[in-house]
Amino acid sequence: MTNKKEIIASIIIIGNEVLSGRTKDLNTSTLSIWLNSIGISVQEVRVIPDVEKKIIDTVNELRNRFDYVFTTGGIGPTHDDITAETISKAFDLKYGLHKEAFSILEKYYEPGEFNEGRQKMAKMPVTAKLILNPSSGAPGFYVENVFCLPGVPSILKSMLGGLNNVLVGGDPILSKTINLRTYESEIAKSLTNVQNNNKDVEIGSYPFFRQGKLGVSIVLRSVHKAKIEDCSFQILKFVKTKKIEIVEID
Amino acid sequence: MTNKKEIIASIIIIGNEVLSGRTKDLNTSTLSIWLNSIGISVQEVRVIPDVEKKIIDTVNELRNRFDYVFTTGGIGPTHDDITAETISKAFDLKYGLHKEAFSILEKYYEPGEFNEGRQKMAKMPVTAKLILNPSSGAPGFYVENVFCLPGVPSILKSMLGGLNNVLVGGDPILSKTINLRTYESEIAKSLTNVQNNNKDVEIGSYPFFRQGKLGVSIVLRSVHKAKIEDCSFQILKFVKTKKIEIVEID
Repeated sequence: MTNKKEIIASIIIIGNEVLSGRTKDLNTSTLSIWLNSIGISVQEVRVIPDVEKKIIDTVNELRNRFDYVFTTGGIGPTHDDITAETISKAFDLKYGLHKEAFSILEKYYEPGEFNEGRQKMAKMPVTAKLILNPSSGAPGFYVENVFCLPGVPSILKSMLGGLNNVLVGGDPILSKTINLRTYESEIAKSLTNVQNNNKDVEIGSYPFFRQGKLGVSIVLRSVHKAKIEDCSFQILKFVKTKKIEIVEID
Repeated sequence: MTNKKEIIASIIIIGNEVLSGRTKDLNTSTLSIWLNSIGISVQEVRVIPDVEKKIIDTVNELRNRFDYVFTTGGIGPTHDDITAETISKAFDLKYGLHKEAFSILEKYYEPGEFNEGRQKMAKMPVTAKLILNPSSGAPGFYVENVFCLPGVPSILKSMLGGLNNVLVGGDPILSKTINLRTYESEIAKSLTNVQNNNKDVEIGSYPFFRQGKLGVSIVLRSVHKAKIEDCSFQILKFVKTKKIEIVEID
């Protein structure tokens, strides 16, 4: 890549419910698309159980290797929500009632409803910075380059806007998709040539089935719009020669 | 856990398309549910890019730590399909045309259609064992405890049956879900008590929104049916005392 400096991130999905197969992870997709749009590239995702040592080890490994780390899940009020306490341990910070978080939640609930269970959601590293939650009150938080978000997809999504001015990204990562009515094996050789001639564009090839018909999605990704267009031109050239039907270009 | 020996697995999702957010990973859920049913517990998932060194390092780390490792993606005919060659390198095995895979694919295609692109799908560690593919011909393969499956969810799903006699699992991991019309904070304390008294059952608590209404799913998981039922009884007891509505038990 020739862009100035690639800003890279990893995501840690904390949750037995994803490992058991009960819940499909939607947060990776939401986070990745949004991070790409602000010039941050997600290079690794880990799904790990709600186990203290595992969370500490994973957070400490990844925060040293990536510019940003995002965790999702485990910041609610129940016994299996151990992310906040665990992050305190990973950073060796005091875990307790966070004044600002406490004050937000106290105002959010009706008088008398801010019970012990709910107060747990104000407990986190006491020096953490908050990520405001426009959906349901309980804030996320961040310490250095580690950002802790909830696991519920709609709530997570609603909190990202609050991070726009906190994260520093590079050039937005652009993409173009060419959907063809063909088989991967028909275009494999030509596509390899185009990839070899266009090192700055990441070319992915993905078979799809849609309405009973097979096809191939070619996805071009780069921070350089002109290079994507060059590459697209070269692909459409061999597509024409091979008389392959174009389903759509997006 | 008191079961004889827990058999543990990890999953490696190989694919830029998941990291970019373009594709939501469905394979973890399919694999985990199926593995649980044959007594294998998935303890970690990694999503990594189509980058040779990254794949080699991840496979070599995880195959030493887990009884089984499953990879998905990267075994098609295009330039970005590098899993088979990379697994050969991870195990220091010769990469080339696999006789049995070649013979399967040669029969699968019409005469003259088994072109160079398609022949790539017969290339893998030459001593690998095959995982048959009832959907689209091209087999997966395994070397020692590492099982390589395709990324297309429907094809992956169709290949699992062929592994039933290859994998050795423990007792099936059972689960029971109790959906309640309540908030997590209302039940957090009671649920903590039940968890403390039932160490052999993993209790998860997950808020949900459905048809505009909030609720909480309590998920009990264990290899012991009787212990799940005990635990369920204790939960339903406090649910009754608190006059919480039960939405469904599954």
